[in-house]
Amino acid sequence: MSVNLKPPKPASLHPVPGVRLGVAEAGIRKANRKDVTLIELAAGSRVAGVFTTNRFCAAPVQVCKAHLAAAEGIRALVINTGIANAGTGELGLANSKQTCDAVAALLGASPSSVLPFSTGVILEHLPMDRLIAGLPAARQNLRDDGWFDAAHAIMTTDTIAKAVSRQIEIGGATVTLTGMSKGAGMIKPNMATMLGFLATDAAISQPLLETLVEEAAGLSFNSITIDGDTSTNDSFILIATGRAGNAEISDAASADYQALRSAVVEVSIELAQAIVRDGEGATKFMTLAIEGGGSREECRKVGYAIGHSPLVKTAFFASDPNLGRILAAIGYAGIDDLDVSKIRVWLAADGEEVLVAEEGGRASSYLEEAGSRVMKSPEITVRVDLARGQSAVRMWTCDFSYDYVKINADYRS
Amino acid sequence: MSVNLKPPKPASLHPVPGVRLGVAEAGIRKANRKDVTLIELAAGSRVAGVFTTNRFCAAPVQVCKAHLAAAEGIRALVINTGIANAGTGELGLANSKQTCDAVAALLGASPSSVLPFSTGVILEHLPMDRLIAGLPAARQNLRDDGWFDAAHAIMTTDTIAKAVSRQIEIGGATVTLTGMSKGAGMIKPNMATMLGFLATDAAISQPLLETLVEEAAGLSFNSITIDGDTSTNDSFILIATGRAGNAEISDAASADYQALRSAVVEVSIELAQAIVRDGEGATKFMTLAIEGGGSREECRKVGYAIGHSPLVKTAFFASDPNLGRILAAIGYAGIDDLDVSKIRVWLAADGEEVLVAEEGGRASSYLEEAGSRVMKSPEITVRVDLARGQSAVRMWTCDFSYDYVKINADYRS
Repeated sequence: MSVNLKPPKPASLHPVPGVRLGVAEAGIRKANRKDVTLIELAAGSRVAGVFTTNRFCAAPVQVCKAHLAAAEGIRALVINTGIANAGTGELGLANSKQTCDAVAALLGASPSSVLPFSTGVILEHLPMDRLIAGLPAARQNLRDDGWFDAAHAIMTTDTIAKAVSRQIEIGGATVTLTGMSKGAGMIKPNMATMLGFLATDAAISQPLLETLVEEAAGLSFNSITIDGDTSTNDSFILIATGRAGNAEISDAASADYQALRSAVVEVSIELAQAIVRDGEGATKFMTLAIEGGGSREECRKVGYAIGHSPLVKTAFFASDPNLGRILAAIGYAGIDDLDVSKIRVWLAADGEEVLVAEEGGRASSYLEEAGSRVMKSPEITVRVDLARGQSAVRMWTCDFSYDYVKINADYRS
Repeated sequence: MSVNLKPPKPASLHPVPGVRLGVAEAGIRKANRKDVTLIELAAGSRVAGVFTTNRFCAAPVQVCKAHLAAAEGIRALVINTGIANAGTGELGLANSKQTCDAVAALLGASPSSVLPFSTGVILEHLPMDRLIAGLPAARQNLRDDGWFDAAHAIMTTDTIAKAVSRQIEIGGATVTLTGMSKGAGMIKPNMATMLGFLATDAAISQPLLETLVEEAAGLSFNSITIDGDTSTNDSFILIATGRAGNAEISDAASADYQALRSAVVEVSIELAQAIVRDGEGATKFMTLAIEGGGSREECRKVGYAIGHSPLVKTAFFASDPNLGRILAAIGYAGIDDLDVSKIRVWLAADGEEVLVAEEGGRASSYLEEAGSRVMKSPEITVRVDLARGQSAVRMWTCDFSYDYVKINADYRS
């Protein structure tokens, strides 16, 4: 199941000059499945990333951070599905490094110019022989227009491949942005079992690229939740190959940066929302618009309390306007001096917005028929005015269905 | 479904001198159902309580707090099921007060000597005419041995009534403790949609009774979680009628206090565990023993991260020793300087304890068969050694099944 998520059309995914992608079947965990993806970057490409905050961060994440810090220039990314290489101790770390060594040898690059990514079950070791044996085929397969196949090869419990592409003008040059993401469960910010890769051919300075990946992650991948679980492997990588011909962007206040930033954020949000739309067992896509907060942080607390509540999520699954569960979640979000008598809550869908709660209870104008009508929509916005200040956030989540339990009870079997 | 939870036997529930209980059918939300319970206390009884921290705390909770603060002496408790009277604004508050007025008039007591409790759906108003019309029958029905019927009358989505009774000796006097609880969903500490009432005939000073209810709640009702939702109505009430004939306990260091404390904590834990055993859709009962923490607070963070993770909970439902999900939860529990290489994790059941993780990964001695054998048990202990200090906590939770979704998607329909 998924909510209003269409698979990408191959022709819609513009190649990004300087980026080639190749996939292969290595038999990591299951046979006859593309499970290794290689991404080769032209010399001079710049790369920045945001990673999981989980203390059990997986071996590949540790290696990625070290290789990015080495600042030698990244020339390749290697992604395997099937096994996450997380909770694997010293051997896991050695395996991630060995993967980089093998890719480096194939491409004639240095090991620290390779970033490794793994996603799948945790606490199991990578079958290094099979993984390494699969790499030459992925290299053989490297193509400019490899995004469509790569978006499929990085899927785990995803039901639909996720890829987005845009072209914009910056200073007279056509700039391309193409990205892909994967993830459908264990999704909570900071971050999710989610991998995101976004490449552009824009020329941008390394410091500004690093600012941009943080900003974009905060507004997209770090604003979604499916089940509240923060994975060990989450990574979002922003690549800039600098081949578009625009003047290098190095000023955050420039119009060029704002244009690029806006496009990167837009594509990142679409990639992040695709993960929620494909949330394990999802039947509803919910936007949480939390407004009137004293700070963005307290708005996020309220958004997460609503977005994580199994009771709220099962009520949405049932199309039940059980508003009390939403109010209860707002109440326990952790804002100690919250004045609940000032809060207003709306449900909106299909152009109709219904005020459901005010003055500490059900809105006097509220009619259950209107609430029920809105709840039947597959795309619903929950808007909350905390009446405490000017901060606002938008976050996205999905409902909680029988199939979520089924998928997660069966995943390893 | 429930996990190793047997209904109480009527004869096992010792009457508590000074406490009479009566139930009636008021038709609050459904017909032909005992939905109002009255508890009458003898003059001189002392009462202390712990209540929800939810900012949307329900009208009856607000009234309870005000009436306890008035310190005039509590003479009656009135509990209705069906409607929680939460998220009901000023009218809800007026309705709770009116309920107290009606009980007070029936018993010839003052309104502020009555504590009201409500549990059920939120955002709906109490049908005051029917509630008040039902009270005389509950009063007519008042009996010393009314615990068994009362434990049934306070049930909502509970499948089994929950009541526990003990007798101990204090200073040569026989002291009785009898309690009941309800709750099966929206269970997270501080607190749950959970009501707990524990009465003893021990003589104890008011300040020490207040200390005791806090201590007991912390070790029992505030150490359980089913779905992470903190309800609007949670209340745990400790009553001491002073009729046992023991010398009044007023010294926290005395042997008498320690004996009473130990019995109160034991009964509270049993009542709290009964709620988890009857958790909505539960098929497994899990004890989370978190040890070696730098503080109790960080142990609790780890316990809640494990106990709230839908991925951990569905893995237990599937009897799948998916240890990685447990490690991931420990990793995102919010202990910033956690050294995962020192953590050890065991799974235990039926007298067998299996070391599953050490040194940042799967334990070298771990065999999947052993993990699978333990996971098949309906009662499993997850023991975590954080290797940071001497603090330890025990918490309890249950798994997450298809039936959890079914119960919560269907609850209002």
